[in-house]
Amino acid sequence: SSAGKSFRATLFPGHGIGPEISAAVVEILEASKVPITWEEHIISVDNVKPGQDIVSREALDSVLKNGYALKGPMATPIGKGYRSLNLTLRKELGLYANVRPCKSIPGVNTAYQDVDVVTVRENTEGEYSGLEHEVAPGVVESLKVITKSASLKVAEYAFAYARANKRKMVTAVHKASVMKMSDGLFLSCAQQVAKNYPDIHYEEMLIDNAASYLVSNPGRMDVMVMPNLYGDIVSDLCAGLIGGLGLTPSGNMGKGCMMAEAVHGTAPDIQGMDMANPTALLMSALMMLRSMDLHDTADKIAKATYSVLKEAKYTTKDIGGNSSCSDYTKAIIDRIDI
Amino acid sequence: SSAGKSFRATLFPGHGIGPEISAAVVEILEASKVPITWEEHIISVDNVKPGQDIVSREALDSVLKNGYALKGPMATPIGKGYRSLNLTLRKELGLYANVRPCKSIPGVNTAYQDVDVVTVRENTEGEYSGLEHEVAPGVVESLKVITKSASLKVAEYAFAYARANKRKMVTAVHKASVMKMSDGLFLSCAQQVAKNYPDIHYEEMLIDNAASYLVSNPGRMDVMVMPNLYGDIVSDLCAGLIGGLGLTPSGNMGKGCMMAEAVHGTAPDIQGMDMANPTALLMSALMMLRSMDLHDTADKIAKATYSVLKEAKYTTKDIGGNSSCSDYTKAIIDRIDI
Ligand SMILES: CC(C)[C@H](C(=O)O)[C@@H](O)C(=O)O
Ligand SMILES: CC(C)[C@H](C(=O)O)[C@@H](O)C(=O)O
Repeated sequence: SSAGKSFRATLFPGHGIGPEISAAVVEILEASKVPITWEEHIISVDNVKPGQDIVSREALDSVLKNGYALKGPMATPIGKGYRSLNLTLRKELGLYANVRPCKSIPGVNTAYQDVDVVTVRENTEGEYSGLEHEVAPGVVESLKVITKSASLKVAEYAFAYARANKRKMVTAVHKASVMKMSDGLFLSCAQQVAKNYPDIHYEEMLIDNAASYLVSNPGRMDVMVMPNLYGDIVSDLCAGLIGGLGLTPSGNMGKGCMMAEAVHGTAPDIQGMDMANPTALLMSALMMLRSMDLHDTADKIAKATYSVLKEAKYTTKDIGGNSSCSDYTKAIIDRIDI
Repeated sequence: SSAGKSFRATLFPGHGIGPEISAAVVEILEASKVPITWEEHIISVDNVKPGQDIVSREALDSVLKNGYALKGPMATPIGKGYRSLNLTLRKELGLYANVRPCKSIPGVNTAYQDVDVVTVRENTEGEYSGLEHEVAPGVVESLKVITKSASLKVAEYAFAYARANKRKMVTAVHKASVMKMSDGLFLSCAQQVAKNYPDIHYEEMLIDNAASYLVSNPGRMDVMVMPNLYGDIVSDLCAGLIGGLGLTPSGNMGKGCMMAEAVHGTAPDIQGMDMANPTALLMSALMMLRSMDLHDTADKIAKATYSVLKEAKYTTKDIGGNSSCSDYTKAIIDRIDI
């Protein structure tokens, strides 16, 4: 346990509604007496030029040194030559696995009641290699890169996660019927790791079948591990099953550091209006607390949040409620049993 | 109209349950007095060797000559060197667009009531290029190829389809935020075609957002057009929304020919047991009838089928019923109002 320990964590408030929801989450964590000192870094996109590094060396070093970061939504400037801020952080910090648990939340109205799935996504390569070129006029190639080392790492993460969280099954999601070599390599790595986890049931499923299965039988899926782009798609699909990106947490795992983040957008249309939903960022922060072994506090905050969501009296507009971000935050704090 | 006309069509019964459901569909079509003469071609996978062409020249020429084909599910032998039969047919016949309409069916129990979407999928290139190589030990590259010509063709198909079927909107689904050049080219082609269809509302959506949107708001989506792999995933997701691949039709469109197909598997476990559900192949055959301009007959068969499904007295096991394939077939034939 982490009793008596204290932590430093980097805080990237982000853009749009980012600062508001970050403030709400920090408030909830402080009310819970979480022993975290925050190191805030503003990543500004004002006045940046194409090709320029937007994320500073100091910001990256802060995460590497502290080992923990909490990140609000960020908007990369649109246009040629701007490198995605999200992808830059994942790459520069070596965040090789992206974990997104999706569990149905009582009180949030969706078509499903029994969703409890976790997407573990390879976070650095695949279709996100950034390697593209025009072969001839009107003919473009993009490279999907799959490596044995990254595939083994993410598979190992998925199985270790399954064991630590008392999950029963890991499903490798792929399209090796078509991408025989790249997805084939990914699968063979998953198979190799599976051998070391005889306590976890291992299955494989084609990405198209998985998409169909998840909308018809989500209750029977458990932990899923997959290459980058499939993870991007499947994790958003799963988020949809439980009520959307405003509710679903995301943790990016690296060697010696993790970055928890809200993966929804910056919602500039409601910026500064005290209307944003901080739940996704809060749930992500709880993943960070669990990485710190602060399970008790994470459990208490989760319990308070679920109780507020279930009562549906203080919820925000995006999920059908009427409350402001600050009233929702206050309602959660009032119910935390410290 | 096609009054008085007659047609020849190639029939590929396929493997596993393929012959049973093909026989059921042919029976229903004949009972409806459809003026089609069938040219049956058996594509056998017995005794084939790796590298060998499984689809004969005669089979391909039959489709090209007749202009129409109906294809049951096929199973490519597993192992290195076997080329997918489905992909071979698409490629050799130049079937550049794959169309999969998914509409909620009253009586079929799912989490959604109001789905009515159509996936138009580029069917020849993208991640299905088949170009892969090992760059170094443990490092594999797969090539995604996007061309202007194929992208324009499928976009043109999608908009023409939308107009002909009185649809209001076409959404191009992409990940141009990451694959800026390849999906960027696809998008620019869609935009170019959209200009010629001012009567059709045009939108763009990221593939991850589309996956989330389709499970939370499917009723607000309409026609979608997208590169090959996204289409593979999204069309199966949509099939799941209305009850699965056993119910959803698929039409592959080429220049001067079309091939309607069931996209579900060959279900060898229930082969020969008179338990299979012929609905997907039947609905695909109706797409073929519409290509022949035989809309009246297609409407009548659809009406009879929906009535049987709604009553839920003669439906097959896979959708919660108790009937055999032949009883279900008979029930449909009994209700066709010829
Ligand atoms: C913002 C974008 C580059 C990112 C991705 O595609 O990975 C996002 O969709 C996500 O899932 O975190
Ligand atoms: C069988 C397979 C190659 C095929 C595909 O991936 O296109 C199938 O999933 C489909 O959707 O028709």
